Amino acid sequence: MITSSSNQQIRRIQQLQKTSKTRQRQRVFVVEGPRMVLEAPEEWLEKIYVSESFLLSAREKKHGGGPKEAGQEKDRWQRLWDCGYEEVSDSVFQAISDTRTPQGILAVVRIPRYTLADLLSPRKKCILYTDTGQPGQNTKAAPPLLLVLDTVQDPGNLGTMLRTGEGAGISGILMNRTTADIFSPKVIRSTMGSIFRVPFVITEDLPGDIQKLRQQGIRFYAAHLKGKESYNAVDYSGGCGFLIGNEGNGLSQEIASLADTYVRIPMAGQVESLNAAMAAGLLMYEAALFEP
Amino acid sequence: MITSSSNQQIRRIQQLQKTSKTRQRQRVFVVEGPRMVLEAPEEWLEKIYVSESFLLSAREKKHGGGPKEAGQEKDRWQRLWDCGYEEVSDSVFQAISDTRTPQGILAVVRIPRYTLADLLSPRKKCILYTDTGQPGQNTKAAPPLLLVLDTVQDPGNLGTMLRTGEGAGISGILMNRTTADIFSPKVIRSTMGSIFRVPFVITEDLPGDIQKLRQQGIRFYAAHLKGKESYNAVDYSGGCGFLIGNEGNGLSQEIASLADTYVRIPMAGQVESLNAAMAAGLLMYEAALFEP
Repeated sequence: MITSSSNQQIRRIQQLQKTSKTRQRQRVFVVEGPRMVLEAPEEWLEKIYVSESFLLSAREKKHGGGPKEAGQEKDRWQRLWDCGYEEVSDSVFQAISDTRTPQGILAVVRIPRYTLADLLSPRKKCILYTDTGQPGQNTKAAPPLLLVLDTVQDPGNLGTMLRTGEGAGISGILMNRTTADIFSPKVIRSTMGSIFRVPFVITEDLPGDIQKLRQQGIRFYAAHLKGKESYNAVDYSGGCGFLIGNEGNGLSQEIASLADTYVRIPMAGQVESLNAAMAAGLLMYEAALFEP
Repeated sequence: MITSSSNQQIRRIQQLQKTSKTRQRQRVFVVEGPRMVLEAPEEWLEKIYVSESFLLSAREKKHGGGPKEAGQEKDRWQRLWDCGYEEVSDSVFQAISDTRTPQGILAVVRIPRYTLADLLSPRKKCILYTDTGQPGQNTKAAPPLLLVLDTVQDPGNLGTMLRTGEGAGISGILMNRTTADIFSPKVIRSTMGSIFRVPFVITEDLPGDIQKLRQQGIRFYAAHLKGKESYNAVDYSGGCGFLIGNEGNGLSQEIASLADTYVRIPMAGQVESLNAAMAAGLLMYEAALFEP
């Protein structure tokens, strides 16, 4: 058991929690809590750290999670324990956790490598579940649906976009370097696990990549003051991508000029704009549920 | 100029920033920043406080706001200054501000009193602006569109619901006492001024008030696991209200049972639910843009 906060591994995790540079250099990030650790793909996992008291209660329960695990989840926990983990004292765990009330388990996870091609795989149509909680029949593949982020700054917004994007069944997210760091603890938390399932590419050349995607037949839409058509009166039947800009300044002129179509989200009252994640959510769901 | 943080007024503002009880007892709350102060209806304003350096720069500019005021905004600032304000030293302002980088102006504002009837006034249809930034023609009144909140806990979510709700043109919000305090600094900030324009009622008897609204012809919809119809395949042509539950636990059974119709927001992947504000936004905009 690690009982000292000056332990090399402990110091490493603290650095990984704190700085984007360390995460980029080591190509790993940290996820916290039983649900996030459980949802991490096994091939992403580098190492699991558990607190003394978490382990104690896990042993009592013969697994490691919440109160309601079904069989499948229990198996997954068993495999995780078999993979090996590091035990740390409760006070040391407090020192490596990013939250005020640590949940006693975290994992160091490898940063995945996606390419532009991964963003183009046919998306799954979002589905209505039946009474029994099983997916309905409406699961046929649909053309790609992308989100493109130009310097989105708020970590909560970025995380919410991933979560909502997975719900809408998007095929992936393309973002520039000046967008908030997707591996920061706050973004990871607010993705609610979608970080593991929505492909994303962080690019040094956003305009160039948008052009490449256009050559693959993606049409780009931007919610913009110049838009004359309401976002709910547009044909989204082909592959499409939504350009989402910075919370304060909107899209840069360069990126806005790459849109094929400007749309408007109509607004009443004195509202000048919606929250960026909200706007992205409305657009993604409109396209996801579009029926020609 | 107030230069001591032990000044009676300063202590009062600190209490108002900190505790919901003080706000309720005194029936006032605090708004911060030039934009929020400028947007506050004059009859709500109790008193304005400005920092020494804010005032200095305002005098130089002959007004009090940002760099780009038009004539109308300038007039409004003039009226605000004429109403009178209290000057405080920069360090005292720091002590009464809820933010790390205070903007140098805040106001103590009266809590408005709305009734259930105020929530039923015909909403404005949300509108598409024309090229010139002027509202389009689609401004006819529409039946009431309500949001009903059952113990929504996150202040950011509550603020975002007000902001998005104003954009969607809702007629008002009904919420129970166990919903986050709408007058807390974080909610106020995230409303972006919508707090001044969207009517809201905080009720001790949420089920009773829902019943009263039903008697006025409002139909209630809840996004719920039991929902079979997708939220975008429902008739929202009459007056309607959306029931939104707690982030972790959803709607209480009592409130869920008052819904006329359960709807589903279809989801792909492994997403179990959307963020509460996101779900509310999708539902409100769907109803706002509904065409029979």
